[in-house]
Amino acid sequence: MSKTASKRPDPGIAGSPGEPGLARRFAATRALSEALVAPLSEADACLQSMEDASPAKWHLAHTTWFWETFLLRDRRAGYRLFDDRYPYLFNSYYEAEGARHARCARGLLSRPSLVEILEWRAVVDRAMEDMLDDPALSLLIELGIAHEQQHIELLLTDIKHALFQNPLGPQMWESAPGPCAGGACAGGAEMGWHAHPGGVARIGHDGEGFAFDNEGPAHRVLLEPFTLADGLITNAEWDQFIADGGYRTASLWLADGWAWVNENAITAPLYWRGAERFTHTGWRERDPNAPVTHISQFEADAFAGWAGARLPTEFEWEAIARGQDAEGTPAAHDANAGNQLDRATPPDPRGGGDLFGDVWQFTSSAYLPYPRFRVAEGAVGEYNGKFMSGQSVLKGASCASVRGHSRASYRNFFYPHQRWQFTGLRLAKDL
Amino acid sequence: MSKTASKRPDPGIAGSPGEPGLARRFAATRALSEALVAPLSEADACLQSMEDASPAKWHLAHTTWFWETFLLRDRRAGYRLFDDRYPYLFNSYYEAEGARHARCARGLLSRPSLVEILEWRAVVDRAMEDMLDDPALSLLIELGIAHEQQHIELLLTDIKHALFQNPLGPQMWESAPGPCAGGACAGGAEMGWHAHPGGVARIGHDGEGFAFDNEGPAHRVLLEPFTLADGLITNAEWDQFIADGGYRTASLWLADGWAWVNENAITAPLYWRGAERFTHTGWRERDPNAPVTHISQFEADAFAGWAGARLPTEFEWEAIARGQDAEGTPAAHDANAGNQLDRATPPDPRGGGDLFGDVWQFTSSAYLPYPRFRVAEGAVGEYNGKFMSGQSVLKGASCASVRGHSRASYRNFFYPHQRWQFTGLRLAKDL
Amino acid sequence: MSKTASKRPDPGIAGSPGEPGLARRFAATRALSEALVAPLSEADACLQSMEDASPAKWHLAHTTWFWETFLLRDRRAGYRLFDDRYPYLFNSYYEAEGARHARCARGLLSRPSLVEILEWRAVVDRAMEDMLDDPALSLLIELGIAHEQQHIELLLTDIKHALFQNPLGPQMWESAPGPCAGGACAGGAEMGWHAHPGGVARIGHDGEGFAFDNEGPAHRVLLEPFTLADGLITNAEWDQFIADGGYRTASLWLADGWAWVNENAITAPLYWRGAERFTHTGWRERDPNAPVTHISQFEADAFAGWAGARLPTEFEWEAIARGQDAEGTPAAHDANAGNQLDRATPPDPRGGGDLFGDVWQFTSSAYLPYPRFRVAEGAVGEYNGKFMSGQSVLKGASCASVRGHSRASYRNFFYPHQRWQFTGLRLAKDL
Amino acid sequence: MSKTASKRPDPGIAGSPGEPGLARRFAATRALSEALVAPLSEADACLQSMEDASPAKWHLAHTTWFWETFLLRDRRAGYRLFDDRYPYLFNSYYEAEGARHARCARGLLSRPSLVEILEWRAVVDRAMEDMLDDPALSLLIELGIAHEQQHIELLLTDIKHALFQNPLGPQMWESAPGPCAGGACAGGAEMGWHAHPGGVARIGHDGEGFAFDNEGPAHRVLLEPFTLADGLITNAEWDQFIADGGYRTASLWLADGWAWVNENAITAPLYWRGAERFTHTGWRERDPNAPVTHISQFEADAFAGWAGARLPTEFEWEAIARGQDAEGTPAAHDANAGNQLDRATPPDPRGGGDLFGDVWQFTSSAYLPYPRFRVAEGAVGEYNGKFMSGQSVLKGASCASVRGHSRASYRNFFYPHQRWQFTGLRLAKDL
Repeated sequence: MSKTASKRPDPGIAGSPGEPGLARRFAATRALSEALVAPLSEADACLQSMEDASPAKWHLAHTTWFWETFLLRDRRAGYRLFDDRYPYLFNSYYEAEGARHARCARGLLSRPSLVEILEWRAVVDRAMEDMLDDPALSLLIELGIAHEQQHIELLLTDIKHALFQNPLGPQMWESAPGPCAGGACAGGAEMGWHAHPGGVARIGHDGEGFAFDNEGPAHRVLLEPFTLADGLITNAEWDQFIADGGYRTASLWLADGWAWVNENAITAPLYWRGAERFTHTGWRERDPNAPVTHISQFEADAFAGWAGARLPTEFEWEAIARGQDAEGTPAAHDANAGNQLDRATPPDPRGGGDLFGDVWQFTSSAYLPYPRFRVAEGAVGEYNGKFMSGQSVLKGASCASVRGHSRASYRNFFYPHQRWQFTGLRLAKDL
Repeated sequence: MSKTASKRPDPGIAGSPGEPGLARRFAATRALSEALVAPLSEADACLQSMEDASPAKWHLAHTTWFWETFLLRDRRAGYRLFDDRYPYLFNSYYEAEGARHARCARGLLSRPSLVEILEWRAVVDRAMEDMLDDPALSLLIELGIAHEQQHIELLLTDIKHALFQNPLGPQMWESAPGPCAGGACAGGAEMGWHAHPGGVARIGHDGEGFAFDNEGPAHRVLLEPFTLADGLITNAEWDQFIADGGYRTASLWLADGWAWVNENAITAPLYWRGAERFTHTGWRERDPNAPVTHISQFEADAFAGWAGARLPTEFEWEAIARGQDAEGTPAAHDANAGNQLDRATPPDPRGGGDLFGDVWQFTSSAYLPYPRFRVAEGAVGEYNGKFMSGQSVLKGASCASVRGHSRASYRNFFYPHQRWQFTGLRLAKDL
Repeated sequence: MSKTASKRPDPGIAGSPGEPGLARRFAATRALSEALVAPLSEADACLQSMEDASPAKWHLAHTTWFWETFLLRDRRAGYRLFDDRYPYLFNSYYEAEGARHARCARGLLSRPSLVEILEWRAVVDRAMEDMLDDPALSLLIELGIAHEQQHIELLLTDIKHALFQNPLGPQMWESAPGPCAGGACAGGAEMGWHAHPGGVARIGHDGEGFAFDNEGPAHRVLLEPFTLADGLITNAEWDQFIADGGYRTASLWLADGWAWVNENAITAPLYWRGAERFTHTGWRERDPNAPVTHISQFEADAFAGWAGARLPTEFEWEAIARGQDAEGTPAAHDANAGNQLDRATPPDPRGGGDLFGDVWQFTSSAYLPYPRFRVAEGAVGEYNGKFMSGQSVLKGASCASVRGHSRASYRNFFYPHQRWQFTGLRLAKDL
Repeated sequence: MSKTASKRPDPGIAGSPGEPGLARRFAATRALSEALVAPLSEADACLQSMEDASPAKWHLAHTTWFWETFLLRDRRAGYRLFDDRYPYLFNSYYEAEGARHARCARGLLSRPSLVEILEWRAVVDRAMEDMLDDPALSLLIELGIAHEQQHIELLLTDIKHALFQNPLGPQMWESAPGPCAGGACAGGAEMGWHAHPGGVARIGHDGEGFAFDNEGPAHRVLLEPFTLADGLITNAEWDQFIADGGYRTASLWLADGWAWVNENAITAPLYWRGAERFTHTGWRERDPNAPVTHISQFEADAFAGWAGARLPTEFEWEAIARGQDAEGTPAAHDANAGNQLDRATPPDPRGGGDLFGDVWQFTSSAYLPYPRFRVAEGAVGEYNGKFMSGQSVLKGASCASVRGHSRASYRNFFYPHQRWQFTGLRLAKDL
């Protein structure tokens, strides 16, 4: 591309939970979206490498459509759309909002240009200014911010997948020193466990602060005694699985997973090549002590069985994350420690103290509605509910998640074969 | 075909739960498999209309392979296989048993002939005679019987699908008078409900009698208050859903369901054509009061939402079926009342008294392992566990199920788009 | 299957050119169709192994539909169809005859049964009796006979392909001693050549005797000097091509052919396995001196280039076959010597004397209309003309062709990747 | 995009045949390639809308690879490649040049950037300067120029197809006044014909001036008497074909064409929408008197039959273009009159005087080697010969062809279903 690799933006600018004002978090989120696109050329920003992924420019536009549609158009008298043709182009999947451009053809939208999209963003941002302090809109604005934060993560994972297709192995950012230095790195540390005696656990969002509709209603779930690892599975451990023939042993796999392995000739996590892995800073040597990432639920499940363990349920994970009745004392229930994407030096996969962190963690739970879940009226009701079929729940957060975006009740979801997100694995066992 | 439509065999010969002896039930099950194939020509018995389905002859052979492999070969010294080449042809999906014929090509096995398969069956049956009284083998024999009963149901649904492809609309049996006559038919009866106050319910097989591994371990589940319909949704009710634009209203559907509807141009249940439906006795006028059948989980879910209700979870269904803490008094927890396949006159979809009966009922539950579920060692361990991904649980039994085959803890499972089984719908609501 | 392999019918009963009467040839052709099906079970006769192929029973029915439609229905007052539903089932591709059963689903027609089709054939044959002497119908009857002869060859190649899919390797006939015995076999004989000085050649059918419309109008073509091999390429020669890396050398292949080789992992002719080939009499050792067969035009072209030669044009082949201006003296211009399907002992691929014989020979010519070719009015006009796109011309005849069916002007045609016919190769060179 | 529509470059700069020097034509061709890309954004230049098409940037790069590989690398001692990784990215289909990037993934090459490709072009152009006067290289340089001219046409047709996918209907250039003005436009003029008495015609390139290998060797062909239209079929005539049900009448179509029409729901030429057509200057009203374009050979063939005519053979077309033995006196045999892409006002489709001009004209001839055609040694031998299967010959030139690029012996070729080139139709008839 015409740009040289630049420094990665500080994810902190998206606003941490400690920053109160909606207006400030709105601005920070909007700015982060744009900062991430800064190193991309016009062509980079238009790439779509598979139907699951979208171009970076499209993410910038779609998030803007969300604000323009559900806030400006719906809640502000007299607002005129920036361009009448944009809703057709940038609606993602909201049937209630009418016909839209085919998902698989988003990469063919060389126009509107990146500059035009940025102009649109500026216009929408200015128009939003007056609305950000309206208490009647605060929930919708929280949703808009959370929505854009989700697309920030998708933008990062989608562009990584797109650049990976290029034999030149382009880098989006220069390599940056990671937060983890010196002897603090716990590679090789022994795995600890958080035991839980079982019993009734309180699950789901309890009403304080913003949460997506799929995190509620809060309810009780009966758990059997179990224990949850305090660390994530590492690259070194995954290498052992491979060396032991994990990808060639049918008995380790779910039937659908075994078919997927064979049809796609899967032999390693996505982005692995020899001793390297592809990152936003290009091809890098893998750190054996870093958490394994870019694995599918099928792979996670096979590994867990090979290791004599299993995936946790989403309820088990949440119970430990909340510190309910558990022997261990996990502190965090509100956030990932920070967005630490593709660090040259990995974080400590064992030192945790909390369950969030570097990778989304596949659970064994299907993504289904909680008891008494109701889909909201109107287009916004399509946000989560209609995807409750065939997908699985992931808990935690990843290095690509915006700081403060996740929480103990957060339910991410993907199909069992998908692995272009920063997905990893934390083991559980029966007690 | 060269045979004229014949009378349908009495499913009672498969042995009801009251019949004690394994040997007697073994014989009855084996005989029922063969009786069902009697009206088929050699070509009928070789038909495979889609990859999900298998030829009738293949079912006869595969069930025989199961006995020959896991009983005669594994447990009987000196047994020699009837034909060394058959395991390759008739292993279904047991990776531990080695390579096998491609599933999609089962319909190309014009040989061995039906006669040769029946000869094999006779040889295996004779060899089995000595083993049927061995207590050490009784669990494995129970599994073999249950396995063959499952294939009996598949044989019936697969041949129905195959004959449906023929523009001549061939009939497998002559039309038979149904068990339901006169004013006893409850068409138009008002729907009753079984209310449940919520709380801890005991779920899963408790160890008495045979059950599949996926029905256990028994464990407790917390339920919210709910109510379950005492009747099944009828054809007449489904007609209303269609008339109200159900298949054209995106907001009623799960996203995957809506894609399925559009890609496959779905506008009605499978086998519907005008006011008729295709049955084993050919094209028949639909009875408005009969339970709707041959619907996918996607359709069931859309209908339920349209009706202001929802699908039950598998746990809710089981709790009512067991009569736990419920206001209604459902009697049955051990069987469907009888195999009443494609009756000209339908059963009473409202009169129930039990939840079993004419159709398998889609629940909202994903087919996942129960807590502490362990896959058994060896090939038999592949029976159920490896399919615990992407599928949904159905409860009850159908008119094609062998009498006595099902029970309250029974977990049938199919993908959400599949509908060539006798699948239907029972509504639930929150209380 | 339930039948044991039987003796192969004598193809001579189809009537040689020396047999004058239409009635006699009609009867012989109809009888040959049925004789070929005799060793097949009901299930064998229903097999369809790919969309290009049709079930044997379907061939029996389709040819009967042809007689019933174009002779009995169109030309005989008061004739009533045997079954009103059959035209929908057994029309192959005649748009003018209305909608029809999907080609890919012919294998799902387990009914009407083989017996029912044979009854239909008998009824049609009797009804045809009065018409066979009507001079006004003789051309149409000739067409019907030629049509049924083509389907006899297709029946043989289609059932071979279907039985090949069966891991049991079933045999349709017992092995029969071939016509070629003792020292007469010319394996290893040196290749001779028929030289031609070039100039104007007369091409196409000249009006005496029956020919398909695509063989005319007769016209002149300018040829450059060339020479045509007097023998066919043998299995031994093909083994050398393989040993020399022919299937791995991109430069030998047309671009479409190279793509085909790689997408389908082609490494040998169809039906080859180790040192064997699959035949109607099961798996047999390959004779190195037998003509290679079951090759695509892509393979034929690659081999020819590897051998320093090329494929002949259809015009060159015909000129030599007619003996026009050639130094050699090829005798035959009217027939293949006989239907010698899958002989245990091969014919002499070098001894020829004529160009017909064991395999259809791919030419380099595209299948296109001759100058002034006109498609006939009505459904019969769809017989050949509409296929003049994308296919290539083959000349000669094969061991599966009915004796007397071919001639020098005969133009067989298939797509360049197809090879389930008895296709082989005769080289040509420029002079 | 970030650029506004600009004026279209003058195609004359590519050098007309009157301009002698290779160096000058080299420079003009290289400059034209770049001038055409000038109005494109970085993202526009990276678009790939289907596997048949390539990104504009890729065309700039691939043509440069051709010069660098076959001239600089092969013929200049000590030349070092600009970038060792580029051959893998920008080799199109030359097997002899080794592995290469998948064709379908060219649109994912956001890098190297357009600027980097232009830098490479400049370096290669400078390096080429010394070689352009070397007589030993002149044939190879002529090939390189012709090659780049072919890619100029592909660049134009590929970017048109890509922009067409965008619902915004972007325009690449401002609308420009066309060369044809006033009463000279012959819309509605009566069709004239060039009659030919038949006989021996001289076909193929005769050795003077550059020609592709596939245009020779020159040889004689026997023609039957025929006549060729002096005008092209117009949009108005095509509208009549549509109005008469042309796309719904099976009997007009080749079997493969009819399948293509139905599978793709074809009802009009590509780029038609209502009364408009998509052009490089956006959506424009169709001129009824302009030649129809963007039709497949299937459509051309169906139209010709509907009109009581047929497609010409490539030999008939060439004989008339050369003025051999014809009653008419077509002047041109060396060029299309000029590159008049997407003119607002159409050229005169009847006034011709020559057969070249606005659209490539489908013939009925398959693209096959001429007698004694030999593929050249080495990678350059892959240029034309390996595509001689399954494609059809088009004659003439189009408004997107570089001036002077075509000639009477020129053989363009595409598959019968392809129509994103500027393809049209000239009728022929038997005499």
